[in-house]
Amino acid sequence: MESERPLDALNEARGKRVIVELKNKVQLIGNLKAFDIHINTVLEEAEEWENGQMKRKLGKAFIRGDTIILISPA
Amino acid sequence: MESERPLDALNEARGKRVIVELKNKVQLIGNLKAFDIHINTVLEEAEEWENGQMKRKLGKAFIRGDTIILISPA
Amino acid sequence: MESERPLDALNEARGKRVIVELKNKVQLIGNLKAFDIHINTVLEEAEEWENGQMKRKLGKAFIRGDTIILISPA
Amino acid sequence: MESERPLDALNEARGKRVIVELKNKVQLIGNLKAFDIHINTVLEEAEEWENGQMKRKLGKAFIRGDTIILISPA
Amino acid sequence: MESERPLDALNEARGKRVIVELKNKVQLIGNLKAFDIHINTVLEEAEEWENGQMKRKLGKAFIRGDTIILISPA
Amino acid sequence: MESERPLDALNEARGKRVIVELKNKVQLIGNLKAFDIHINTVLEEAEEWENGQMKRKLGKAFIRGDTIILISPA
Amino acid sequence: MESERPLDALNEARGKRVIVELKNKVQLIGNLKAFDIHINTVLEEAEEWENGQMKRKLGKAFIRGDTIILISPA
Repeated sequence: MESERPLDALNEARGKRVIVELKNKVQLIGNLKAFDIHINTVLEEAEEWENGQMKRKLGKAFIRGDTIILISPA
Repeated sequence: MESERPLDALNEARGKRVIVELKNKVQLIGNLKAFDIHINTVLEEAEEWENGQMKRKLGKAFIRGDTIILISPA
Repeated sequence: MESERPLDALNEARGKRVIVELKNKVQLIGNLKAFDIHINTVLEEAEEWENGQMKRKLGKAFIRGDTIILISPA
Repeated sequence: MESERPLDALNEARGKRVIVELKNKVQLIGNLKAFDIHINTVLEEAEEWENGQMKRKLGKAFIRGDTIILISPA
Repeated sequence: MESERPLDALNEARGKRVIVELKNKVQLIGNLKAFDIHINTVLEEAEEWENGQMKRKLGKAFIRGDTIILISPA
Repeated sequence: MESERPLDALNEARGKRVIVELKNKVQLIGNLKAFDIHINTVLEEAEEWENGQMKRKLGKAFIRGDTIILISPA
Repeated sequence: MESERPLDALNEARGKRVIVELKNKVQLIGNLKAFDIHINTVLEEAEEWENGQMKRKLGKAFIRGDTIILISPA
């Protein structure tokens, strides 16, 4: 049996380390804590990466969903 | 008999390999796992391509629908 | 007697060859298979054109409506 | 007695030749056939103009409303 | 007693000459004929201005609300 | 006791001089007359500023909410 | 027990110093006073930062939600 809806896939990733790619070419890597139907997303122990380099540690980060391109496992 | 609604076409592609073209000129190629009415889409065994070159393997990828231009068979 | 609503015009074009102009300056030419109120559109035997040159054949293509500028007969 | 709502003004222009200015600096000139509340618009005998030059004849054109800046008499 | 809602201010300007500033740096000057909650707006005796120069006379112009930055008295 | 909702903060600023920062890098300074849930905003005795210089006086200005970045006390 | 929805994370940050990153590359740092479901946000004792430099003090600032990329602890 398999998940059929996109948010099911995010739900499976809850608590796991993910890469969130943003429209401004930044990547945020962190533990997926929460998300909603707008794809507003909260990461914990989040790091900001750009061009393959870690720029800074953010701790907990609330990301507005409309800035997100994709979310995949870290 | 034929499908009349756009999402029917996506439904037929479920489980098959597709190309998802994004507004940032990236192509994602993977197995279409799930989608919803916003065209939020989940690919499995996803690869990121740019300018005809495979950039990296993503595994499972959740793509926010508003970043998508088109989806076609790979 | 004439059609009064914009989607009526698209309905008349169903099954015919159309040009779909996208915001990224690409033209998709194909047989109009399906569309919905968001103007999400499915083309069959679709080709991608740019600057007057055919770039590639897509087969069936699902196009997210918000990337479309206009649809006219091919 | 006068029209008070913006769509009334479009309604008066129905069947007349109009200029539709698009966000991509293209002008479409044609006979206003239909429109809806999203300002999705259908022109007949439409021509595409850019920088004061006619680029091509489109015949009937369905224009997605969110690409339109303004509509005025041709 | 004073108006409290933004659309009240537009209502007071009805029939008066206004400047409509657009996101593409064009100014439209005309008599405010109609508007709706999306700020779709109709001007009469409208002129298009750019960089302080009158570019052309439009007559009646329907302006899609999402292209408007602001409306002020001419 | 304190205000908890963002619009409460705007309500407290009603009648006071505010800076409205727009996405096109323009600042509008004026007396906050009215606003709504879309953040459509009306200023009175409004001035347009750019790069620290006052460009022109607008009198009353209706600003479409989606062009606004932030509103703060002048 | 843990928060499951993104807005819970913002709620925990209420009254604390946060960094709000905007789409125009500006950072606003201030005490999180209020937010709503659109992520319209009010900061107190807000400062505007750009490229690692404090540009100006804003006092209380109302930020329109659609300009926000992310919110994290300062």
